[in-house]
Amino acid sequence: MNMLPGLAASQYALIYNVLSFTIASMLSSFVFFLAARQQVGVAYRPALLFSALVVGIAGYHYLRIFDSFNDAYTLVDGAYAPSGKPFNDAYRYVDWLLTVPLLLVELVAVLHLSKAVGRSMLIKLIIAAVLMIGLGYPGEAEYTNMTMRAVWGTLSSIPFVYILYVLWVQLGAQVKNESAAVQSLLKTTRVVLLATWGVYPITFLLPILGIGMETSFVAVQSGYAFADVAAKCGYGLLIFFIARAKSEADGSLPQDKAHA
Amino acid sequence: MNMLPGLAASQYALIYNVLSFTIASMLSSFVFFLAARQQVGVAYRPALLFSALVVGIAGYHYLRIFDSFNDAYTLVDGAYAPSGKPFNDAYRYVDWLLTVPLLLVELVAVLHLSKAVGRSMLIKLIIAAVLMIGLGYPGEAEYTNMTMRAVWGTLSSIPFVYILYVLWVQLGAQVKNESAAVQSLLKTTRVVLLATWGVYPITFLLPILGIGMETSFVAVQSGYAFADVAAKCGYGLLIFFIARAKSEADGSLPQDKAHA
Repeated sequence: MNMLPGLAASQYALIYNVLSFTIASMLSSFVFFLAARQQVGVAYRPALLFSALVVGIAGYHYLRIFDSFNDAYTLVDGAYAPSGKPFNDAYRYVDWLLTVPLLLVELVAVLHLSKAVGRSMLIKLIIAAVLMIGLGYPGEAEYTNMTMRAVWGTLSSIPFVYILYVLWVQLGAQVKNESAAVQSLLKTTRVVLLATWGVYPITFLLPILGIGMETSFVAVQSGYAFADVAAKCGYGLLIFFIARAKSEADGSLPQDKAHA
Repeated sequence: MNMLPGLAASQYALIYNVLSFTIASMLSSFVFFLAARQQVGVAYRPALLFSALVVGIAGYHYLRIFDSFNDAYTLVDGAYAPSGKPFNDAYRYVDWLLTVPLLLVELVAVLHLSKAVGRSMLIKLIIAAVLMIGLGYPGEAEYTNMTMRAVWGTLSSIPFVYILYVLWVQLGAQVKNESAAVQSLLKTTRVVLLATWGVYPITFLLPILGIGMETSFVAVQSGYAFADVAAKCGYGLLIFFIARAKSEADGSLPQDKAHA
């Protein structure tokens, strides 16, 4: 079990506010992605629905993380001491197990590939995502044996690299006929995915690098939260822009007769 | 850290009721703006969606502020004494960080400018809004050094003035071809924006003017709440009226065949 560090009032307030910011971002993105389906062609609406599910699930988990964080601390003489109740971090892994495959579904769905190509790509991506998260968790929960943490981390990286291969090489080959606008948005989306997912292994490495969870607790909690906002809300917004650009290119953009 | 003043039962009840009024206003406006999208042309629906997001996010934050306010006080001999738990005011800044850029997006979206003009204007406005709020926060959190508070406040005013310049001069030039009804509504909207946003720097100045947070606490909390209702619900209602007027002018107003 991870030992919680005591926190100064300002450190506690920072994590508290960052978690609340994340809840607000996730829940408002949920409403936005659901409603914004009306602003893209019918073919691209499933992608926005998946975006909505991702941020809805994440919003739910952040509500739980927020409550768990509050319960895990108690105010003593103007500072925050661990209350003895555990801070349940495992929510993040439960969340990723559901949302990471859906993030990949979003990307494949918005490209509207042929059924056979899309399906085979999705099966590969989803299996790799589940393996990546499943192999990462035993390492994340390992706070004493740093060798075992490194072993699990390395095993977890193999499917991660495979996902990058599928997205860059295999997906790249499929989108050569897309418009320049779509290709450029797609490149940005993949970079956002790589940059935000890259935060997780770095955070994972901190205890191995000898930076104790105690001192890095604030950075880790804020880092995960901002990475999740970028990887889910920001990424979903890019998927929305791709859906708009593709709807515009194929003439399926819903519009008034007056503006047609 | 801000020291909370003790409150008479009537003062406590006033803040309590104002906060609750604000929650009711925000959440009912959320439902209204979402549903009212069906009453304007397709081109103006994104503006109403952004209005809904703004009041939804604010409603969430006011629920948190309300809970935090209740936790921060305890009833002792018929009056309210600080319980020792902090009253988390920072929610307001977290809220503004999300909602102020969205308020500007609302205004640009409802005008339905050309893509290039709209995008460049939005980028300028959003960067200025984030700077304004980011520079305001260190000043707001500064209760001892009034010079530093004034410095941050002044720095924060620069992007505020820039936003006013973009809205009055640059946006003004873009809407010359709009109908008289739209132009008049737009003028009202900008005045509401200036009047309600003007409450925030005034509140910010109170501690510098020597009016202690203790005595002005009730005024500040009520002032922020009423300003938020005007700046979000009232402003969103004006955006709805602009969307109606523009839909009517360009013939995109949804209507029954029987009334056409």
